[in-house]
Amino acid sequence: MSDEKNEGVLARWGEGLKAKSSSLKAKVVELLRKTKKLAKDDPRRIVHSFKVGLAITLVSLFYYFEPLYDGLGASAMWAVLTVVVVFEFSVGATLGRGLNRVLATSLAASLGFGAHFLADLAGDKAQPVILSLSVFIFAAITTFIRFFPRIKARYDYGFLIFILTFCLVSVSGYRDDEILQVAYRRALTILLGTFIAILICLFICPVWAGDDLHSLVSNNIQLLANFLQGFGVQYSNESKEDELLEGCKSVLTSRQTEESLVNFARWEPRHGAFKFRHPWKQYRKIGSLTRQSAYRLESLNSYLVTETQTPLHIRDRLMKSCSKMSIESSNALEDIASDLRTMTQPTFPNPHIEKSKAAMKDLKAALKIGPGDGDIDLLEIVPIATVASLLIDTISCIEKIAESVGELGSLANFKCVEAGKSSGLELEQEHQKLPNSAIVNDHCHVVIVD
Amino acid sequence: MSDEKNEGVLARWGEGLKAKSSSLKAKVVELLRKTKKLAKDDPRRIVHSFKVGLAITLVSLFYYFEPLYDGLGASAMWAVLTVVVVFEFSVGATLGRGLNRVLATSLAASLGFGAHFLADLAGDKAQPVILSLSVFIFAAITTFIRFFPRIKARYDYGFLIFILTFCLVSVSGYRDDEILQVAYRRALTILLGTFIAILICLFICPVWAGDDLHSLVSNNIQLLANFLQGFGVQYSNESKEDELLEGCKSVLTSRQTEESLVNFARWEPRHGAFKFRHPWKQYRKIGSLTRQSAYRLESLNSYLVTETQTPLHIRDRLMKSCSKMSIESSNALEDIASDLRTMTQPTFPNPHIEKSKAAMKDLKAALKIGPGDGDIDLLEIVPIATVASLLIDTISCIEKIAESVGELGSLANFKCVEAGKSSGLELEQEHQKLPNSAIVNDHCHVVIVD
Repeated sequence: MSDEKNEGVLARWGEGLKAKSSSLKAKVVELLRKTKKLAKDDPRRIVHSFKVGLAITLVSLFYYFEPLYDGLGASAMWAVLTVVVVFEFSVGATLGRGLNRVLATSLAASLGFGAHFLADLAGDKAQPVILSLSVFIFAAITTFIRFFPRIKARYDYGFLIFILTFCLVSVSGYRDDEILQVAYRRALTILLGTFIAILICLFICPVWAGDDLHSLVSNNIQLLANFLQGFGVQYSNESKEDELLEGCKSVLTSRQTEESLVNFARWEPRHGAFKFRHPWKQYRKIGSLTRQSAYRLESLNSYLVTETQTPLHIRDRLMKSCSKMSIESSNALEDIASDLRTMTQPTFPNPHIEKSKAAMKDLKAALKIGPGDGDIDLLEIVPIATVASLLIDTISCIEKIAESVGELGSLANFKCVEAGKSSGLELEQEHQKLPNSAIVNDHCHVVIVD
Repeated sequence: MSDEKNEGVLARWGEGLKAKSSSLKAKVVELLRKTKKLAKDDPRRIVHSFKVGLAITLVSLFYYFEPLYDGLGASAMWAVLTVVVVFEFSVGATLGRGLNRVLATSLAASLGFGAHFLADLAGDKAQPVILSLSVFIFAAITTFIRFFPRIKARYDYGFLIFILTFCLVSVSGYRDDEILQVAYRRALTILLGTFIAILICLFICPVWAGDDLHSLVSNNIQLLANFLQGFGVQYSNESKEDELLEGCKSVLTSRQTEESLVNFARWEPRHGAFKFRHPWKQYRKIGSLTRQSAYRLESLNSYLVTETQTPLHIRDRLMKSCSKMSIESSNALEDIASDLRTMTQPTFPNPHIEKSKAAMKDLKAALKIGPGDGDIDLLEIVPIATVASLLIDTISCIEKIAESVGELGSLANFKCVEAGKSSGLELEQEHQKLPNSAIVNDHCHVVIVD
C-alpha cells in the first residue's frame, strides 16, 4: 500500500519534472532562436561585442605588466572604466562621448584644483565649508544647464562628467596631499582609455552613424514607394498586404533614431563618400517630409479596408486614374530613393512626377459627372473621392521630398549622371543590407517593446 | 598728423569695441531670457538642480569627517560617483538606475571574485591569461545581451555596470591583496550613494514619472479636442490658428517620451492616486490610439488651407453637419480627457459620441444629390467629401480611445461618479500645469533641436 503510494508520488513527481524540463527546453530553444535572429538581423552586433571585449582586455593589460603598472598605479582602473563607458555602437557616438569625457575631465580637474587651492588659503576651519559650498553651487548650476535642449542633445554627457570630476578632485584634495598627481593620473588614464576605445571603434569594422542615417532616410522613402506600389496594384486587384502597411508605419516611428543619428554623424570624420562637414542636418528635413507623406498614406490605408460601395460605372472611370497616379508616384519615390542611395543629383523635373500629375488631370476630368449619370448618392463616392484627394496631396509632398533631396545634392556635391545610372551600383549594394528595425534598435536609447 | 592718425585708429578701435560689447550684451540678454523661460516652463527643474547639489554635498561630507572617513577611506569616492550618475529627474528613473546599479554591482563583484579565485588556483603564470580571457568573454557576451530590446528598455544600465564592476574586481584583484575588502567597500559605498540619491529624490519635492505620463496622455487627448473644436469653428468662420495645429503635431512626436515614462513609472512605488502595480502599460495603448487619430487630423488640416471651391448650395448643406460632427467629437474627446485626468470611470455610451454619430447620419443624408441639383463637378465636392470622410474615420478612432480609457478605468479601479464631476477637481488642478513640451524635454534622452 505504502509502496503504491510512494510510486504514485514518484510518478507525479517525475511527470512534474518532465513538464518543467520540457517547458525549460522550449524556453531555451526560444532564447536561442531570438539570439540567432538578433545576430542575423545585423551581424555588426557580434563584431561590436568582440570589439568591446578586445578593448577592455587591452586596457586591463596595464595591470598585468609591471612597467605599465608602475607608471599609473591603481589609477589604471580609470582607463578600464572609461573604455566601458565610452565605447558605443557607432563611431560618431563613441567620438562624441570620448571628446565630451576628455574635455569635461580636463576642465573640471583644473577648476577643482582651483577650488582646492582657494580653500587651502582660507585656513583649516573654513576649508570644508568653502569646498562644500563650491561643490553645491557647481553641481546645481551644471544640473540646470543640462536642461537646455541644445546642450542636452550634444553635450549632456560632458556636463555629467564635469560635475563628477569637479567633485572628485576638489573633495579628494581635502585628504590627498598629492592632489596634483591624482588629477594628472586621472586625466592621463581617461585620455588613454578614450584613445584605445576610439582606435578600436574606428579601425576594426567601423560602424558609421552617417552611413546608417543615409540608409535609414533612403529606406524610408523606398518603403513609401513600396506602399504606393502595393496600393496601386491592390486598387485593381483587391489583394492586401500587411507588410506594406507595417513599412509605412515604421517610417512614422523613426524620427527619434534619425535625430540621434544626425547628432552622432556630426562628430564623424570623413569616411566613404561622406566628407567631414557633410550636410547631415538636411537629412532631418528630408525625413520630416517623408513622414508627412507617410501620414497621408496611413490615412489612405483605411479606404482599402472599408468596403467600397462606389457605383461601378463611376468606380471604373476613377479607379484607373487613381491606380495610375499611385503607381507613378511610387516610381517617382523609387527614383528619389535610388538617387539618394547612390548619391546622384536627381533630375528635374522628375518624369514620373510629371506623369502622375497628368494622371491627376485625367482623374479630375473623370470626376465631372454629366446628366447621363443619373441620380448619385454622393456618399457612395466619398471613399474613392477621399482616396483621390489624399493621392493628390501626396503628389505635392513627393515634389517637396524631391526638392529637398535636390538641395542635399547641391550641398553635398552629388555626382551628375545624365545617361545611365550604373555607376552608383556599388554604393547601392553596400548600403541596402540592413532593415530599418535593426538600425532603429542599434542606435536608439529608448527602445519600444511591443 | 600722427596724432590725427592715432585718434582715427583709437576711434575705430573704440567703435569696434562698442559694437562687440553691444553684441555681447544682446547675447547675454538672450541667454538670460532663455534661462528664465526654461525655469518658468517647469519650475521643478530648479528644484531638481538644488536637490542634486544637496545630495552630492551630503555625500562629500564623508570626506570631511574623520569617523566617517575612517570606515570607508578613499572608496568614499565611489559614493560621490554613484550619486552623480544615479540621480535622475524622476523618482522612477532614479529608482531604476539605482536598483540596476546595486544589483549589477553585487552580482559582478561576486563573479569577479570567483574569477580571481579560479585564476589564483591556476598559478602565477596562467593567472593573467585566465583573467584576460574571462574579462574578454564576459564583456563580449554582456555587450551582445544589451542588444535584446526588452533588456535594453529596462536593464541596459545594469548590464553596463555589470561589465564595469566585473572588470574592476577581477582585474584589480591581480594586484590588490585585499581584494575582499576592495569588493566589500565598493559595494558598501555604492549602496550608500544610491541610498542617499533615492532618499533625496523621493522625499524632497518628488517628480513622479507616473504623474507626468498621466498628464502627457490626457494632455494629448485634450490637444486633439482643441484642434477639432477649432476646426469646427473655423469651418464656419474661416479663421485659422497655427497653435492648434502645433498641438496636434506635438501629439505625433510624443511617442518616445511616453515609452520612457512607462518604463520609469513601472519602477515607482505607490504615490498619490496611483498604486504600485498601476496598469502603466495601458497608457501606451491609449497613447497609440491618440496618435492614430492625430494622423487623421493632421491630414484634415490641409483641407482648411486649400481654397474650397465647393458650390455654395451643397457646401451650406454639408458644412453644418461637418461642423457639428467635429464639435461633438471634440466634446467627446474633452470628456475622455477630463475623465482620465480626474481618474473617473467614463460613462458608456458617451453622449457626445452618440450626438456626433447622429450628425454623421445627417451628413450622410445631406450627401444624397437629387436631379434638382443640376450638373455637378465631383472635383468641387472632393475637398468637403474628404473632410467628411476623415471626420467619420476619426469618430471610430475616438470610440476606441474611449474604450481603452474605460479598460484602464476598470484595471485601475477608477471611481464612478454618476452625478456631477466636481470631486475630481483637485486632481485636475494639480495635473494640468505643465505643457507637453516641458514634459518631453524633461524626460527624453534624445532631444530634438529645431
